[in-house]
Amino acid sequence: MEGITGNIATVGYGLATIGPGIGLGIVIGQTQIATARQPEVAGRLFTNMMIGAALIEVLGLLGLVAGLMFT
Amino acid sequence: MEGITGNIATVGYGLATIGPGIGLGIVIGQTQIATARQPEVAGRLFTNMMIGAALIEVLGLLGLVAGLMFT
Amino acid sequence: MEGITGNIATVGYGLATIGPGIGLGIVIGQTQIATARQPEVAGRLFTNMMIGAALIEVLGLLGLVAGLMFT
Repeated sequence: MEGITGNIATVGYGLATIGPGIGLGIVIGQTQIATARQPEVAGRLFTNMMIGAALIEVLGLLGLVAGLMFT
Repeated sequence: MEGITGNIATVGYGLATIGPGIGLGIVIGQTQIATARQPEVAGRLFTNMMIGAALIEVLGLLGLVAGLMFT
Repeated sequence: MEGITGNIATVGYGLATIGPGIGLGIVIGQTQIATARQPEVAGRLFTNMMIGAALIEVLGLLGLVAGLMFT
């Protein structure tokens, strides 16, 4: 008997992307709507989007770091 | 008796696509609505979409990388 | 009695279709609304839809590849 192999850290990473994936979608999607509504502030909206996206993205990427921290 | 076989990394990858799959859908869907509302900024909206999609897509693809990192 | 048999990669693939399935639905659904609202940009909306759908579809299909990669 061999059973299931592999590292549970892969499941941890998978779970760690659910929220950030949806959250990034909401941030960027609403940026699109806002840009269409008021094109003259498109630059400011883009800056906000990138700052927000960075804050969210790091949560997902730390899912990989968690696998390296907890062995 | 053999039981369940295989590598748990496949489950990890599956989980890693849930958030990004929904998130990409929101981003691209809202881009369509925004493009229809303000066709003259369609180019800018497309640029935002591709930057946002790249940020989200990478979270999903790292699900495969996680399987290679954590063995 | 034998218990549960089979390969966990099937569960992984099943999970890998949840997000992309919903995401594709949102993209194509919003494309319909946008096309009806502004028919003169229908071509551009279709192009956006195909690019976006390709980005999402690949996340689901890699669920099968994951089963071949991680044995």
